[in-house]
Amino acid sequence: MPPRPLIGVDIGGTKIAVAVVDASGRMLARTSFPTEAEQGFDRAVGRIADAIQEVLARAGTSASSSPPAIAGIGIGCAGPVDPVQGLINNPFTLTGWDRCDIVSPLRQRFGVPVKLENDADAAALGECWVGAGQGASPVVMLTFGTGVGGATVQDNRIVRGSRGEHPELGHLPVDGRGPACYCGIAGCLESIASGSALGQAAQSIGLRDARELFSAARDGSDTAQAIVHRAIDAACTAAWTVFHTILPQRLVLGGGLMDTEFDLFAGPMRERIAKATQFTPSAVDIVPARLGNDAGIVGAASLFRL
Amino acid sequence: MPPRPLIGVDIGGTKIAVAVVDASGRMLARTSFPTEAEQGFDRAVGRIADAIQEVLARAGTSASSSPPAIAGIGIGCAGPVDPVQGLINNPFTLTGWDRCDIVSPLRQRFGVPVKLENDADAAALGECWVGAGQGASPVVMLTFGTGVGGATVQDNRIVRGSRGEHPELGHLPVDGRGPACYCGIAGCLESIASGSALGQAAQSIGLRDARELFSAARDGSDTAQAIVHRAIDAACTAAWTVFHTILPQRLVLGGGLMDTEFDLFAGPMRERIAKATQFTPSAVDIVPARLGNDAGIVGAASLFRL
Repeated sequence: MPPRPLIGVDIGGTKIAVAVVDASGRMLARTSFPTEAEQGFDRAVGRIADAIQEVLARAGTSASSSPPAIAGIGIGCAGPVDPVQGLINNPFTLTGWDRCDIVSPLRQRFGVPVKLENDADAAALGECWVGAGQGASPVVMLTFGTGVGGATVQDNRIVRGSRGEHPELGHLPVDGRGPACYCGIAGCLESIASGSALGQAAQSIGLRDARELFSAARDGSDTAQAIVHRAIDAACTAAWTVFHTILPQRLVLGGGLMDTEFDLFAGPMRERIAKATQFTPSAVDIVPARLGNDAGIVGAASLFRL
Repeated sequence: MPPRPLIGVDIGGTKIAVAVVDASGRMLARTSFPTEAEQGFDRAVGRIADAIQEVLARAGTSASSSPPAIAGIGIGCAGPVDPVQGLINNPFTLTGWDRCDIVSPLRQRFGVPVKLENDADAAALGECWVGAGQGASPVVMLTFGTGVGGATVQDNRIVRGSRGEHPELGHLPVDGRGPACYCGIAGCLESIASGSALGQAAQSIGLRDARELFSAARDGSDTAQAIVHRAIDAACTAAWTVFHTILPQRLVLGGGLMDTEFDLFAGPMRERIAKATQFTPSAVDIVPARLGNDAGIVGAASLFRL
C-alpha cells in the first residue's frame, strides 16, 4: 500500500488555502477561500472541513473510508499559536481568534491526527522538504511579508527553545536609531525592512506603497533610494547575526518582498557575509524561497512526515 | 568499581592549568604553570604530560596502571582549534602554534582517549556540569575576557553548525558606528565591550586600563561613564539578540570583566529583556558564571562525561 496522502492547511489573515499533498510533497488538489476571521472561528472551521472534503474528492480520495484515507491534517497558521495545545491565539491578525481550538473539531470530523504550527515554521518546513532548503541543515528561513518572520530547521525539525518558542528573527536589533517596535526595542529588522515599515516609509515621501518605493528608487529618486538602502543594510546586518548565532548552512529568503526584490537584497548580503573571518563564508549560501505561497501548505502537510 | 577520574587541561595565552577531576566534577588535585608558547609547542606538551603525572600522583592515582586509572584527558584551548583533527591552530595568541597535534602525543604517553575543545566551549560545559548553567537547557555563556567568546550548550552538548563551527557571539553587530573589528564588520560586541576594547578606550582618556576606567566611572567621570555605558548598551543589545535567536533558558556571563562588574551589566540587561514581547522574559534568567578560571578545566574533563 503506498503511503497515504496528507492534508495541508494554511491560514493567513486574508485567505485560507487547503490542499491534498502526497508523500513526496506534491500537491494533488488545492483550493482557497477568504479567511473572513471576523465572521467567527466556528464558521471558518466548517469551511476548512468542507474544503478538505472537496480537495479529497478532487484527488480521488474518500474522506470517510476506514482506516482513514489520509495520514493526518497539518495546519500552518499566522501566529501566535500554541502547537502543544493546538490553540490559535492570534486576535492581532485574525480578529476574535483567541484560544481557539482548531485541532479537536477537525480530528473529530476526519478521525485522523491533526497538528498545528506557526505559519513561518510551516513555510520553512515546506521549503526544506521540496523547496530551496533541500539538502542543507541547519536552514534558516527569513520571511519578509507584512512583518518579518523567521524559522530554523535542523534535520527536518523546527528548532525551538526550552518552552517551545521559536526564533523571533524579525526582532533582531539592526539599527538603534530606527523606529520603536511592538517587540520592545527600537530599530529591529521588522521596524525597517518589513512590508508594513516600507509602506509607511513610502507614504512619508508621498508614494503609495512599497512597490512604488522600489520603482522610484530604480528611477533614481534619492529619498526612495535612501529608504531602500536602509532596508537592505538592515537585512545584511540581520543575516550577519544569523550566521554568527544559529550557524545555518543556508539562509532562505522568502515572502512578498523577496519574490520581487531578492537580487537587490541578496547581492549586498553576500558581499557583507564574504567579509566574515570567524566562520567560512564560502560554506554557506543565501537563496530565494522556491515554493512561494505554497510553502506553508506543503510544510503543514510535512508535519506528518516524521 | 567507581567511575575512573578524568584529566582536565586548560591552555590559555599566559598559563596552562591541569587537574584531576572526579566523576562528579570535583577537582582532586590541580597545578598550573606559564604557557610560554614562544618556547615551542613540544616543550609545552612535555610540561603538560609531566603536570598530569604530578596531579595524578597527588590525587593518589597511578598513571601507568592497566587498565588506565583515568578515563580520558580533555583539553580546552584558546582557539581556533580543530576538535575533529585534534589540532591547535592558534598562532594569534599562542605564538608559533599552528597545526599542532596535541592529541597524539598525550594519547601515546597515557594510553587513554584525548579530546580537544575550544576554551569557551569547555568553560560553558564546565558551568553546565557543576556551575551556573546546571539544570537549564539551552544555556548560552558569554565570556568577556581580552576578547568576547560565546558558546551554546544544549543537553550537555556544545551546539555546532554544519561544519563543526560554534556561535561567534563576540561578533554580533551591536552598534554600526563602532570601531572596525578583525571579524569583518564595525561595531560588534567585542569591538566595544571586550577587555581589550575597554582598555584602549580607557587609554584614550588618559587612564591606564579597564579597571581604572570602571573606577573613574564610579567616581563620576563623565567621559569614563560614557564609555562604560556604551559597553553596557552593547552587552544589552547582544543579550537581546541571543534571546531572539538561540532562545536559551539561561544566559551565563563569565570572564574577568564579569567577575568584577556583573551587577553593573546584568541590571540593565534584565531591564532590557523584561520589555520583550515576543518571548516570555520571566522564563529566562541572566546569571554570573560560578567556576571562574576552573570552568575550562572542569569542562575539558567533562568531554568524557557522555
